[in-house]
Amino acid sequence: MTFEARPIGHVESALVDRADAPKQADEGAPDAWLVLDPALAPAAADIAVGDELVVVTWLHDADRSVLVVHPRGDPSWPPTGVFSTRSPARPNPVGLHTVRVLGRDGTRIHVDALEAIDGTPVIDLKRALAPRPEER
Amino acid sequence: MTFEARPIGHVESALVDRADAPKQADEGAPDAWLVLDPALAPAAADIAVGDELVVVTWLHDADRSVLVVHPRGDPSWPPTGVFSTRSPARPNPVGLHTVRVLGRDGTRIHVDALEAIDGTPVIDLKRALAPRPEER
Repeated sequence: MTFEARPIGHVESALVDRADAPKQADEGAPDAWLVLDPALAPAAADIAVGDELVVVTWLHDADRSVLVVHPRGDPSWPPTGVFSTRSPARPNPVGLHTVRVLGRDGTRIHVDALEAIDGTPVIDLKRALAPRPEER
Repeated sequence: MTFEARPIGHVESALVDRADAPKQADEGAPDAWLVLDPALAPAAADIAVGDELVVVTWLHDADRSVLVVHPRGDPSWPPTGVFSTRSPARPNPVGLHTVRVLGRDGTRIHVDALEAIDGTPVIDLKRALAPRPEER
């Protein structure tokens, strides 16, 4: 049993080289555009400036056979099972990115700090939830 | 261009009827087990009691043709584009669930409040990130 994920759009970013991409958004990621499929415009119609969204990407260049990594690609960290990390290398290379909407132009959505490189496929957008009560 | 998502395991839960499933984990969701593929044991080896994880599910019964919903299935809410909601109905029915690990038995991981029903495919697990600095 497998499932077919279809891109809803892609990332347009000044980040083009994976080596330059920060590991997390709060480490200097640039603003970027989410370029959505115009056929999906009704699904994006209520996205407004200031909204906080979770962007779900498919990191299509990742190595899906990797089960253990050195976190952050740093060999001084002990090898760690990928399900305890945010490494792109994992059986299903799903990326999660929380962003704030800065603006929009039709189905092009301008967002703040996004650590995904130019061309990364986007498979979903969701309203971000507040942290769980015990973490507020 | 499409991508193939392969389940890494499934949810084992007392929630069997979708009508009984809470919309969010903090609305009375029960604890549950993540039953992972034993072949992926190295990827899960570092998951420990107390860890906070994001469980990525594939909501395989969702209607992928839906672009606009009444949030929470409540007709008194105005129709809203699915990318501004957490509705399961959307082009790629990815579910995101933040949980805390209560225990484990090999590749069976016991987690707290999870609003996914029994049998839901799991496609990824990740370390949860702290909220972004401006939200702390």
